[in-house]
Amino acid sequence: MHLGMIGLGRMGGNMAERLRRGGHTVVGYERHPGKRDVDSLEELVERLEHPRVAWVMVPAGGPTRETIHRLGELLEPGDIVIDGGNSHYVEDQKHGAELAAKGIGFVDVGVSGGVWGLQNGYALMVGGADEYVAQLMPIFETLKPEGDYGFVHAGAAGAGHFVKMVHNGIEYGMMQAFGEGYELIAASDLVTNVPDTFRSWKEGTVIRSWLLDLMVRALDEDPELSEIRGFAQDSGEGRWTVQAAVDHAVPMPTISAALFARFASRQDDSPAMKVVAALRNQFGGHAVESAKGADSPGADVTPPQT
Amino acid sequence: MHLGMIGLGRMGGNMAERLRRGGHTVVGYERHPGKRDVDSLEELVERLEHPRVAWVMVPAGGPTRETIHRLGELLEPGDIVIDGGNSHYVEDQKHGAELAAKGIGFVDVGVSGGVWGLQNGYALMVGGADEYVAQLMPIFETLKPEGDYGFVHAGAAGAGHFVKMVHNGIEYGMMQAFGEGYELIAASDLVTNVPDTFRSWKEGTVIRSWLLDLMVRALDEDPELSEIRGFAQDSGEGRWTVQAAVDHAVPMPTISAALFARFASRQDDSPAMKVVAALRNQFGGHAVESAKGADSPGADVTPPQT
Amino acid sequence: MHLGMIGLGRMGGNMAERLRRGGHTVVGYERHPGKRDVDSLEELVERLEHPRVAWVMVPAGGPTRETIHRLGELLEPGDIVIDGGNSHYVEDQKHGAELAAKGIGFVDVGVSGGVWGLQNGYALMVGGADEYVAQLMPIFETLKPEGDYGFVHAGAAGAGHFVKMVHNGIEYGMMQAFGEGYELIAASDLVTNVPDTFRSWKEGTVIRSWLLDLMVRALDEDPELSEIRGFAQDSGEGRWTVQAAVDHAVPMPTISAALFARFASRQDDSPAMKVVAALRNQFGGHAVESAKGADSPGADVTPPQT
Amino acid sequence: MHLGMIGLGRMGGNMAERLRRGGHTVVGYERHPGKRDVDSLEELVERLEHPRVAWVMVPAGGPTRETIHRLGELLEPGDIVIDGGNSHYVEDQKHGAELAAKGIGFVDVGVSGGVWGLQNGYALMVGGADEYVAQLMPIFETLKPEGDYGFVHAGAAGAGHFVKMVHNGIEYGMMQAFGEGYELIAASDLVTNVPDTFRSWKEGTVIRSWLLDLMVRALDEDPELSEIRGFAQDSGEGRWTVQAAVDHAVPMPTISAALFARFASRQDDSPAMKVVAALRNQFGGHAVESAKGADSPGADVTPPQT
Repeated sequence: MHLGMIGLGRMGGNMAERLRRGGHTVVGYERHPGKRDVDSLEELVERLEHPRVAWVMVPAGGPTRETIHRLGELLEPGDIVIDGGNSHYVEDQKHGAELAAKGIGFVDVGVSGGVWGLQNGYALMVGGADEYVAQLMPIFETLKPEGDYGFVHAGAAGAGHFVKMVHNGIEYGMMQAFGEGYELIAASDLVTNVPDTFRSWKEGTVIRSWLLDLMVRALDEDPELSEIRGFAQDSGEGRWTVQAAVDHAVPMPTISAALFARFASRQDDSPAMKVVAALRNQFGGHAVESAKGADSPGADVTPPQT
Repeated sequence: MHLGMIGLGRMGGNMAERLRRGGHTVVGYERHPGKRDVDSLEELVERLEHPRVAWVMVPAGGPTRETIHRLGELLEPGDIVIDGGNSHYVEDQKHGAELAAKGIGFVDVGVSGGVWGLQNGYALMVGGADEYVAQLMPIFETLKPEGDYGFVHAGAAGAGHFVKMVHNGIEYGMMQAFGEGYELIAASDLVTNVPDTFRSWKEGTVIRSWLLDLMVRALDEDPELSEIRGFAQDSGEGRWTVQAAVDHAVPMPTISAALFARFASRQDDSPAMKVVAALRNQFGGHAVESAKGADSPGADVTPPQT
Repeated sequence: MHLGMIGLGRMGGNMAERLRRGGHTVVGYERHPGKRDVDSLEELVERLEHPRVAWVMVPAGGPTRETIHRLGELLEPGDIVIDGGNSHYVEDQKHGAELAAKGIGFVDVGVSGGVWGLQNGYALMVGGADEYVAQLMPIFETLKPEGDYGFVHAGAAGAGHFVKMVHNGIEYGMMQAFGEGYELIAASDLVTNVPDTFRSWKEGTVIRSWLLDLMVRALDEDPELSEIRGFAQDSGEGRWTVQAAVDHAVPMPTISAALFARFASRQDDSPAMKVVAALRNQFGGHAVESAKGADSPGADVTPPQT
Repeated sequence: MHLGMIGLGRMGGNMAERLRRGGHTVVGYERHPGKRDVDSLEELVERLEHPRVAWVMVPAGGPTRETIHRLGELLEPGDIVIDGGNSHYVEDQKHGAELAAKGIGFVDVGVSGGVWGLQNGYALMVGGADEYVAQLMPIFETLKPEGDYGFVHAGAAGAGHFVKMVHNGIEYGMMQAFGEGYELIAASDLVTNVPDTFRSWKEGTVIRSWLLDLMVRALDEDPELSEIRGFAQDSGEGRWTVQAAVDHAVPMPTISAALFARFASRQDDSPAMKVVAALRNQFGGHAVESAKGADSPGADVTPPQT
């Protein structure tokens, strides 16, 4: 097939490359000259065959919104816009409606695969109308991993990014569970062989998983994780998952706890814990430091009598 | 009444003082000379009238255990031992049984009141057999605050410390809720008058409480809590509350979250978050830093494509 | 002062009444005839003195949005619209901007006080520009409780509802902490006197509070809460607090846990726990039921070997 | 090697079978006649070669304690007792010390593998002194899965059960994360193809794992999990993990949330939520049901003014 790829960063560039290797014709555009095949969205649209297919692979939010809006002005009924970035599913629904009003198709694709995607394929989670998804299947077949998995048409417009968002939410919970388990093991004097413990779990256990494999690799490189700071960014998807859960009245204690742990990891000092400390000061007075309730040398482990 | 007070620290000493002011005869003992009236437990026991009453006010754990054991050797059937420290309720049950085997009564008292107790009275939560508690009522009447509240005979031996433990668990949850609310308000540009906001809540609101009063006091002294580090100790009771909940299959998400926030506040770096960061490094590769998925200047807010 | 009150439900009606008792002139309007003084917003606007003050007390969302928009069409520069409902603070910011473009003032007021407000006054949390808030002080003075508390001008437009929202979030955490503490006490055989335990806490303890007072009242009416179903609605504010925390990267484990507990309380069956049960079935096979790992009668309490 | 297997339930019986297929000589005993090779522990001990090896595979707690104590009486210095059940690591430390005082070795083994272990091997997590573990390696080699993984000597006595316990804690967190993700997807109208979504994740995603594979199997059998009740038991290990975290001051928000969700799933009604509902009744009065704050039909979604 022919398609335009807008955004040639690591993800967009590699996906264009995988598509070309698969026999597709890709016209690439990005803002900066260099790798791009055309110098403007207008030119890209002119170069595409009918019905035109434009894959948008730019940052979520403003850049995606503006690109899709501009494509809506340039394209014609029957053409299709794909949003393969990290958009929020509610944005997809707006974009889908905006384009549908002009007869232009919209398909959203949540993409997983990172730096290995070029070689191994990308897991694709797709939302959109059946007719458009069917039309795009040759592209998806090339991008996805070989084998039976790694592709789903999850539902209408927005569904692709929705399930990708939830995938990432689950990922947050799993990573945090590994983190908590590691911390408890590391805190115990009892376990003298931490990396081998995790390595042993790669077979015959309930928790065997790709994340466990990555963890073993990380411990092989740095057995006490001494080179790594306990500081974790969060991406939009984790936040969106929790907010979507709140919107849908879905209890989400584990994934939210994982998100909050990331927030806390980035704080130099916690305002909430300042309050807790201040309150302890208030009701304990200097007693917090000196009240013993007893004359014993062991008194320093005794909590204040509150 | 006559009673012996063992442990003359801030709590024990003040309680002895309040009892004396109330007309009771108190024989005080502690390990270090100075404030003590007698030089040994043996002498204390000799000085008491029958049936003897010995109030133990030493640190929980070893010191309490040893003191009660020694009293069991010195006292006679009909005498009563009171544990007014911070013992775990399971310890109370053991001590009660150990003393009961010798015909000696045992009563546990959870005490709240801190530095204001001498003047305002101590809230008392009492566990033990009806007959012993009835015998001790004159003491409890003097120690408790005036008015209708501040005293409960909650149940058998251990019940006093059990409900005091739960009181403290609830306190953890409440303090953390105030902390989280404060942090959100402080994080918002919208609210320019934080101390007055909390002050205004002292009347007409659902959350009016002594802890809110303390918080207003803390903000009066230090409106941005800039002098206070977000570092909060935890006492045994918070941990015991969560562990008792687990033992009783009681869901306790809020109080446990408050406890875990205290643990985290004391960590320089979080081993769990090292794992999360290490895993992000593993699947993102250098991509975590540089992968944009797009050519836009906004790319730095884009999560890695995972 | 003169003012229009739009929405004469329990809150709006009682507030109008308290204002009249305080000497203000109130023109009331609501959709349904009966209690209303005028038959339309147009008539209400005509009846007010310059500069006009219109207090909107209708449901958040659509009704508030439409009412404010219509007032924007009817009012003139220098007039003031107050939103005293439960609007989201982001809506306030939009409304403030929309009205400011026409020279009309906007003030948002978070109101606490429920059914006792008519008699005891309402706690008011106010957002808006200084000039408008100053103009409205006579109204606020009448509505608020007597004494030094119960009123705050928290910041610009939106700040009033923002701090009211956080107030409710804190309330969620406190209520849940009491609930968890109660449940643990009720689960223990040790405590035979639950209502008296809570009653005793009304004095001399750290957790004394209005919520504790209410809890004692509830236990007086129904000592085992046997007439009450463990089913708790949530209001918008709890959800918004958690979502605002996520937006501001504020860790909020306790308040979110309280919110999720409410969500869960309303479920007949939990889809998440279906998954957990299904997974246990998958890895345990029928073994979940029958695998003992041993020949002992105690085997039924043994977890499957996973 | 020769060894005695005490406890011939599904786990012990299958392990004995796998050992025999691997060329070892196993003397089996259990309380009930039928499958057992000897009629008493005494006879079992007599039948074993020196140094004797006795693998205990009976329920944790009393049965294990009694069996190990009895073996301590029957065995001789140089013999080895293995606890392959689900004992708490603190029990292991006591058993190890008790046997060490008699010169008898003790090794604890956390075993994973369930019903597939006979065929695929069991993941083994081992604690104990080097000399004893070294002696037992032929047994472990036969029991473990083929390949490089599935066995670790994690540390001294207790370390085997400790890391197995943590493994199960991580498992709780992972399962709950999948559950929460599933629930959110199921709650959304957007996703019309839930089973295929999970199936697609088996390749190219971050969350690919054995648990995901099991989940796909469960959804294949019952696409809406309509035959499964959201009711999840918990095993000792989940509780112990949380309690060990509290003992070690390790924050464990995710795994504890997963544990509490299981507790809650088994409640007909939640006492904690009764309190929340009762408090809402108290401050809202009948207002909870009827207070609208407005005259609008949308009022039923408006929270009470609290």
